[in-house]
Amino acid sequence: MTNSFRSDLAEFATSNVQPTALARDLAELSALDWLACGFAGVDEPVSVILRQQALTEGGAPRAHLFGGGAAPARVVAKVNGTISHALDYDDTHFAHIGHPSVAVLSAAFASGQKLERALPEVLEAALVGMELSVRVGLWLGRDHYQTGFHQTATAGAFGAVAAAGRLMGLDRPQMEMALGLVATQAAGLKAQFGTMGKPYNAGLAAGAGVEVAELIAAGFEANAQGFDGPQGFGSTHHGEGNANTALAGLGQDWLFENISHKFHACCHGLHAALEAARSLDLAEPEVASLTVRTHPRWMTVCNQLAPESGLGAKFSYRTVLAMQALGIDTARLDSYSDRTCANTKLRALRERIHVEADDSLSETTAHVSLLRRDGQRFEAQHDLQSPLDLSDREGRVCAKAAGLMGEDLQAQVRAILKVGGPTTEVFSLLDKENGLS
Amino acid sequence: MTNSFRSDLAEFATSNVQPTALARDLAELSALDWLACGFAGVDEPVSVILRQQALTEGGAPRAHLFGGGAAPARVVAKVNGTISHALDYDDTHFAHIGHPSVAVLSAAFASGQKLERALPEVLEAALVGMELSVRVGLWLGRDHYQTGFHQTATAGAFGAVAAAGRLMGLDRPQMEMALGLVATQAAGLKAQFGTMGKPYNAGLAAGAGVEVAELIAAGFEANAQGFDGPQGFGSTHHGEGNANTALAGLGQDWLFENISHKFHACCHGLHAALEAARSLDLAEPEVASLTVRTHPRWMTVCNQLAPESGLGAKFSYRTVLAMQALGIDTARLDSYSDRTCANTKLRALRERIHVEADDSLSETTAHVSLLRRDGQRFEAQHDLQSPLDLSDREGRVCAKAAGLMGEDLQAQVRAILKVGGPTTEVFSLLDKENGLS
Repeated sequence: MTNSFRSDLAEFATSNVQPTALARDLAELSALDWLACGFAGVDEPVSVILRQQALTEGGAPRAHLFGGGAAPARVVAKVNGTISHALDYDDTHFAHIGHPSVAVLSAAFASGQKLERALPEVLEAALVGMELSVRVGLWLGRDHYQTGFHQTATAGAFGAVAAAGRLMGLDRPQMEMALGLVATQAAGLKAQFGTMGKPYNAGLAAGAGVEVAELIAAGFEANAQGFDGPQGFGSTHHGEGNANTALAGLGQDWLFENISHKFHACCHGLHAALEAARSLDLAEPEVASLTVRTHPRWMTVCNQLAPESGLGAKFSYRTVLAMQALGIDTARLDSYSDRTCANTKLRALRERIHVEADDSLSETTAHVSLLRRDGQRFEAQHDLQSPLDLSDREGRVCAKAAGLMGEDLQAQVRAILKVGGPTTEVFSLLDKENGLS
Repeated sequence: MTNSFRSDLAEFATSNVQPTALARDLAELSALDWLACGFAGVDEPVSVILRQQALTEGGAPRAHLFGGGAAPARVVAKVNGTISHALDYDDTHFAHIGHPSVAVLSAAFASGQKLERALPEVLEAALVGMELSVRVGLWLGRDHYQTGFHQTATAGAFGAVAAAGRLMGLDRPQMEMALGLVATQAAGLKAQFGTMGKPYNAGLAAGAGVEVAELIAAGFEANAQGFDGPQGFGSTHHGEGNANTALAGLGQDWLFENISHKFHACCHGLHAALEAARSLDLAEPEVASLTVRTHPRWMTVCNQLAPESGLGAKFSYRTVLAMQALGIDTARLDSYSDRTCANTKLRALRERIHVEADDSLSETTAHVSLLRRDGQRFEAQHDLQSPLDLSDREGRVCAKAAGLMGEDLQAQVRAILKVGGPTTEVFSLLDKENGLS
C-alpha cells in the first residue's frame, strides 16, 4: 500500500497504534520529567528572554507557558521547547542522537491545550511523535550529526509535526505534506552548543511542528518529497538515508523504549561513571582511591580536574564522584555550586580520584575501580544504554522531579498524568505553585 | 580591525554607509515593486492561509499585514514575506541567486513600523540588508543552490536579520551574534518550488530575521561562529565559502545595483526573449515567422508549445511572444488567462513561432529572429543582466506597479517613498485601497 519512507511514517503517525505498556509508561515518565525540567528552567536567562518576547506580543491565549502566562500554540511550543531544554536535563535517546521530549512534548502539549484534548490523547500523540523522531534520527544517522546538525532540533521537528498533526486529525496524504513542509525549515546547528542557542534549537523544532501542522490542516499544499525525495531534507543535510533500518519493526517495536532519563544535573559524559560508582555504595571516609575509565572523547569534554565554580563542577568527573561519595545529591541543580567546590572534604577526596581514557569502552560506558582504606578492591561498570528496571526508573524519575519542583507538586502532576484529565490542568498546577492562579 | 567574513559583514551592517545614488534609487524602486507584489498577492491561496493564522492568533498590532490587519513584527515579517513572493513577481539578483526584497524588505518594514521609524531609515536599513544578502548569496555560491537550497530564503535570512538588527541599533558584536543565531534556523529547500512552500520559504527568512534581531537586542547570547565558523552554516550547507570574492569592495561597490525587476508576470526564463522581441516592435500582422534561441535549461522549464490555461501560458515562449505581438500586456496578472489561450489570432500566430536551444547563450540571454511578411529580417538579443537605463527602469517599474495596484495608489505610494514619512503610512494607503481604514 505504502511505498516510501515518508508514506510509512505518515501511515504510522495517522493510524491507530498499539504501543506496548512499557512504551506508554515511559512516555508518561518522560512527560513528568519534561514538566519538571520546564518548571525548573524558567529562570535561565534564555527562558526569561523568550518568555518576554512572547508575553510582550500577546495574542490568543491558547496554551500555557512554563513560568505562567498563555499565548498562541505555536508560540508556546517554541518557548516551552526552549525552556525545557535550558537546563539540558531532559531525556536522551542514543539512537535518535537527541532529546525527543523537548521538541515533541512541547508541541503536543501546546496543540493539545489549544484543541482542548484530554491527557491520554496528548500523551499518545506525543509517544507517536517521539517514536517518529527516533526513526528520523536513525535515518539521518551519525553522518548528519557529525557534519554539525543538532538532531534534537532537526529530527525533532518531524516528531513535533507528527504529534501536532495527529492531534489535528491530518490524514495520511496531509501528514506526508506536513513532513515535506517542515523539512523546509527543520534546522539547528551544533555550533550553538554551549550557548543559549542550544535550547533555542529545540524550541524552533517544537514551534515549527505546530505551525506547519496548523498550515496543512488549513489547506496549505506542499511537496511531500521535500522530506525524503531528491533534494529533500535527507539528501541536502548529509543524511545517511538508510530507510530500511529506520523503518524496521515500525508499529510493533517501540524504539522509544530505549529512552534514557538523566539522573544527574551535569554533563551526560559523567553519568555512566556516577551510575557505576553508585552501585559500589561509595562513602567518602572509606575511599583510599578511585579510578575511572571512560571513552576518550569525554576527556576533552568533562574532565576538568579541580573546578572552582558550580558550572565547572558539571564538567568534572573528580568533582561529581566526590559529591556522590559525600552524599551531595547530584540530581539537584543547586548542588553544583561554588560553595560545593570550596568544600574541604571534597577537595581532599578529589585528589584521590583518577580519570583515564579507555578506547575499549563505548561512549555510554564507564568503569570504576575503588580501593578502600581496608585494602579491599571493588569494581563496577555501567552502560547508560543497558535497560533499567521500570520500577527503579519510576522511583528515580519521581525523586528527580521532586527535587526540581517539590515533593507535593511532583505527586500532584504524577497523579494527573496517571488519571488523565484536561491537558490544561497540568499547567494550572504549575501556575499555582508559581503563585499564579 | 576586523578579521573574518562575519566581522566584516557585521561592521558594514552596523556602521554609517554611503550608498551610491543609484543604489538608493534602485532600493526605492524595489520597495515600490515589493509593495505592489504584496498588494497584488493577497488573494493567492498561500496568502489567505498565512493571514488567517496570524489574524486568528492576534497579538500586539505592531505592523501591518498585506491585505489589512496588524500583528506582532516577527509575525508580519513572515506573512508579508510569503505574500509578496506568492506571485513570484518580485525582484531578482543573479549573483545572489535569489530574490532579495521579499526577505529583507518584509523584515525591515515590519521592524520599522514597530520601532516607529521613518521611511528613509527603513529604506537604508533594507538596502544594507539586501546588499548583505547578496554578499552571503555569493559566499554560499552555486554549489549551495545546486545542492537544493533556496538562496532567497537562506541568504535572505542573513539579510533580514541585518536590516532588522540595524534598525534596532545592534552593535558589531551583537550583529555578529545575530548572524550566528539566524544561521541555526536559516533554511529553505528548492524541493518546495512549484508549491505554496516556495513563497513560505521567503516568509520564514523574513520572520527569522526579525525574531533573532529582537532576541539579540534583548540579551540573547549565541555563538557568532555558527555563521561562518567550523560546522557553521556555510560548511554544513554546501557553501562554497569564497569570502574574498563575497567581500570585494564591500561598502564601496553596491552589488545591489545589479538588481533585476520582472516586467512580465510569467516564468523568468521567458523574460530575455520578451525583452529582445520588445526591441523589434513586433506587430502581429507583419510576423511571417519568429525564431527564439535560448539556453537549453529553459527548454524543459518554460517551453510549453500550446497551453490551454493561463497557468500554462506563463511557461510558454510561443504564447507570451504571441501575446506581446498582439498588444496583450505581459506585465499584468490577468493577461494570463484561459481566454487569452483561446484567442484565435494568438493560436494562429503561435504556430509561426519556433523555439530552439542554443548552448552558446547564457541562461539570462535570448536571441530572436523575426521574418516579416515583407521579407525583411530583424534580429535582436537581450541579456537580463545588462544594465538598464535608470529612467527607463523607473518608468517600467511604475507602470508594472500601476498594473498591479492601480494608477492612483501607485502614484501615492511612489510619492511617499520619495518624500519619506512614517513607515506605517505606506500601509495605511494600501489598507484604504482595500476598503479598510
